[in-house]
Amino acid sequence: MVLINENYLKLPGSYLFSEIARRVNQFKAENPQANIIRMGIGDVTRPLVPAVIEAMHKAVDEMGQQETFRGYGPEQGYEFLAQKIIENDFLPRGVKLDVDEVFISDGAKTDTANFQELFGLDNIVAVTDPVYPVYVDSNVMAGRTGGLNDKGQFDKLVYLPCTEENGLKPDLPDTRVDLIYLCYPNNPTGMTLTKDELKKWVDYARENGSIILFDAAYEAFITEEDVPHSIFEIEGAKEVAVEFRSFSKNAGFTGTRCAYTIVPKELVAYDSQGRGHSVNKLWLRRQTTKFNGVSYPVQVAAAAVYSEQGKKQIKGTIDYYMANAKIIREGLQEAGFKVYGGVNSPYIWMKTPNNMSSWDFFDKLMREAHVIGTPGAGFGVSGEGYFRLTAFNSRENTIEAIERIKTKFRA
Amino acid sequence: MVLINENYLKLPGSYLFSEIARRVNQFKAENPQANIIRMGIGDVTRPLVPAVIEAMHKAVDEMGQQETFRGYGPEQGYEFLAQKIIENDFLPRGVKLDVDEVFISDGAKTDTANFQELFGLDNIVAVTDPVYPVYVDSNVMAGRTGGLNDKGQFDKLVYLPCTEENGLKPDLPDTRVDLIYLCYPNNPTGMTLTKDELKKWVDYARENGSIILFDAAYEAFITEEDVPHSIFEIEGAKEVAVEFRSFSKNAGFTGTRCAYTIVPKELVAYDSQGRGHSVNKLWLRRQTTKFNGVSYPVQVAAAAVYSEQGKKQIKGTIDYYMANAKIIREGLQEAGFKVYGGVNSPYIWMKTPNNMSSWDFFDKLMREAHVIGTPGAGFGVSGEGYFRLTAFNSRENTIEAIERIKTKFRA
Repeated sequence: MVLINENYLKLPGSYLFSEIARRVNQFKAENPQANIIRMGIGDVTRPLVPAVIEAMHKAVDEMGQQETFRGYGPEQGYEFLAQKIIENDFLPRGVKLDVDEVFISDGAKTDTANFQELFGLDNIVAVTDPVYPVYVDSNVMAGRTGGLNDKGQFDKLVYLPCTEENGLKPDLPDTRVDLIYLCYPNNPTGMTLTKDELKKWVDYARENGSIILFDAAYEAFITEEDVPHSIFEIEGAKEVAVEFRSFSKNAGFTGTRCAYTIVPKELVAYDSQGRGHSVNKLWLRRQTTKFNGVSYPVQVAAAAVYSEQGKKQIKGTIDYYMANAKIIREGLQEAGFKVYGGVNSPYIWMKTPNNMSSWDFFDKLMREAHVIGTPGAGFGVSGEGYFRLTAFNSRENTIEAIERIKTKFRA
Repeated sequence: MVLINENYLKLPGSYLFSEIARRVNQFKAENPQANIIRMGIGDVTRPLVPAVIEAMHKAVDEMGQQETFRGYGPEQGYEFLAQKIIENDFLPRGVKLDVDEVFISDGAKTDTANFQELFGLDNIVAVTDPVYPVYVDSNVMAGRTGGLNDKGQFDKLVYLPCTEENGLKPDLPDTRVDLIYLCYPNNPTGMTLTKDELKKWVDYARENGSIILFDAAYEAFITEEDVPHSIFEIEGAKEVAVEFRSFSKNAGFTGTRCAYTIVPKELVAYDSQGRGHSVNKLWLRRQTTKFNGVSYPVQVAAAAVYSEQGKKQIKGTIDYYMANAKIIREGLQEAGFKVYGGVNSPYIWMKTPNNMSSWDFFDKLMREAHVIGTPGAGFGVSGEGYFRLTAFNSRENTIEAIERIKTKFRA
C-alpha cells in the first residue's frame, strides 16, 4: 500500500481562486446579461511589447536551422540573459553580482515554492498576514507548519500581522524565526517598505541568523524614490537574503513564463554539526537535478526586455497599469473608502465598508456592481475586512468599474 | 541559525556529466587539434521541424496582439494540447483518457523528480540498476533513501540489477516495494520490455499495492511490434501506474521544453488511516500550488507535432537518428563488441572490451579515437563495465566515430 504525503491533508479544502471562479460562474449562469468586470486575479492584460515579439521570432527561427539550433541549455539559464539582468536590474543600484548568482527559471511562483526544499524541516518559518498563499502552502506540503487550527492558521508558522494599527507594515517577530518570507511591493496589500524599514529586517536576520526570502516580483511598479527595488540595496543583505524576480508583471510574461532568483554566494546555512554550506551551491544542485532550464526562445524574449526599445515599450505598459491604479485609488478615496497601495504597486487594498466581511463584500460587489475582486480574507486572518482590486485591466473597464462602485457604494 | 536539508549531504560529490565535461576539457586543452566527436549526453542535434516552427511563430504573434494575448493559462496545460495528446498518443493504442488525466509540464525530468513529493517518506522505492540518476537523486533529497554505502548504493533503496545474466531486464523485486521507477525504452541501456514482460510488473504492482512511475520519454523510437508504447496498453495499469512523456527526444524539444504526465483517475494512494486518496487530485494540487504552466507558444508548438505535416516531418527526424543507431550497433558488432539497445532506442549500450572499467574505457576512447561516450558506471553499480553511445549526432560524425572505434579497437 503506497502511503501519501499526509501533509497534503492539512491544506485548506478550497483554493481561493477556485472558490472565486465557482461563485462567478454561478452568478453568470443566473445573470447571463451582466457585463462583468474582473479586477480579481493578478494577471496582466496588455500584449507583449514589439521588441520582445521580434526577439522571440528570431529565436524561433534559430531553433529551426541546423546551424543555430539549441538543445539543452544550462539548467540555471543562459549567461546572455544573466548578464543583462545584472547590468540593468542591479548594477545601476550599486549591487554587484556574478552570473552564477543568477538562476533563471520558469516562474517566481515555482521558485518561491521550491526554495524551501533546501532547508531542514525544523526551521521556524515566518510569513506576513495577509500573505501570498504559495509561501504557506509549499511549507505545509513539506511538513514545516504543523496543522491548521480553529483560527485558520498553521500551528508552527509565525504570522506577522499587517493591520491598520501598524500601517500594514509588519513588526519584527517577537520570537526568533529562521526563514522569513517578505514580498515588497506587497501582494496583496500593495504596500512597500522604505530603505530604513527594510534595513530593520536585514539587521534582524543578521542578528538572529535568519534568512529572508524576498519576493520582488512587483519591483517594476515602484514610483517613489525611497523604496528599494532590491533587498541587496541594503548593506549586508547578501549574507542573509535571497531575492525572487519575475518578468510576469513588468513585461507581461504570465503566459510566456520567465523569472529569476538571486542567490548570493555569501549566503550560508548550516548542518546539525554547525558546518556552513553555500545556499547558492545547494540551489544549483537542486536546479541541475530537478529542472532543465527555461525554453531558449523565452530566454531570448526576456533578454529583449532590456534592449533600448524594450525598456521604452515596457515602461509604456507599466505606466498604463499605474494610471489605472491611480484611477482606482483616487476613485475609491473620493467615494469615502479607506485605501492602501496603488502608488508603487498594481494592487489596491481597500477596507470593506461598514465592517462587512471580505466575502460578503465580494458577493455584494459582484451582485450590485458586477465587479469581481479578491476577498482579503483569502490571504490570511488579518486580511478579513479587506478587499483587493488590481490595475491589470483596460482603461475603459477600470473607469467603468470605479464609476459603478462609486454609484452603488458610499463607504 | 538556518539548518539545511541534510539529505543533500548524502548526494554523491560529483555529478556524472560534470565529471565528463571536466575530463573532456582537460583533454582538449592538452590536444587542441583533436577532432572530438561527442556521443555522450543524450541531447538531440536536429532542428525543430518546419510545422513546429510555423506554429510557434503564429503563437508568438498572438502574444503581441491585444485581442489574442494570453496571460496565465491553466497550470496543468491547455486543453487543446491535452486533446491532441489523447487522440494521437493513446486512443490509437486503445487507451482512453480524460483531458484532466493529462498534465502538461516543462519537462519529464521535472516531473519524474517532483512526483515523489506526493508520497510519504516511509515508502520503499525500487529502481533499476543502471538507472537515470534523477529518480535516485530526487528521492535522496526528499529523505527516502538512507545514506550512501561503500558499494555506492543507498541503504534503503531497492536496486533491481540489469545484467548480462537477465538479458538487462530486471527481475521482480524479491521483497515488497511501494514505488517502482521503470523507464522503457530504457535510458541508459536502450532495452525494451515486451507486453508480456511489462504485464508482469503491472501484475506485481496490483498484487502488492505498488505504484509504477513509468518513464516513456523514448517511446517514439520503438520500431518493433510487440513493444508497448504506453504502460496503459497493459490491462489494469491505470490502477497502478503514472506515465511520463516528453517532446524532448521525439520532436527535439530539449531546448524548447515541453512534456506531459498521465495520472489516471483510477490511481489511489492511502493515508495512515487506510483511507484512499486520488493521486490525480494530489498532483493537481501540487501543480496548481507550485507550478504556473508551460509557455503558451511552446504548447502551441507541441500541438503542431501532431499535425499531419508535423507527424511526417518528425518521423523523418526519428528515422535519421535510428539510422545512426543502426550504424553504431552494427559497426560495433562487426568490431566484435557485445552491444545492447539501438533497435527501439537512440541509445547503444556496449560492453567494454577486455573487462575494462567504464571510466578506463572512457579515457582510452577519448585519447585514442577522440570519441566521447558515457561511462556505464555513472548510471549505477551494475553499469560498471558498460558504456553508452547515443545516436543523436550527424550521419557523418556517426560514421566517422564508428570507423575510428573499429580501427583502434577490436573487442
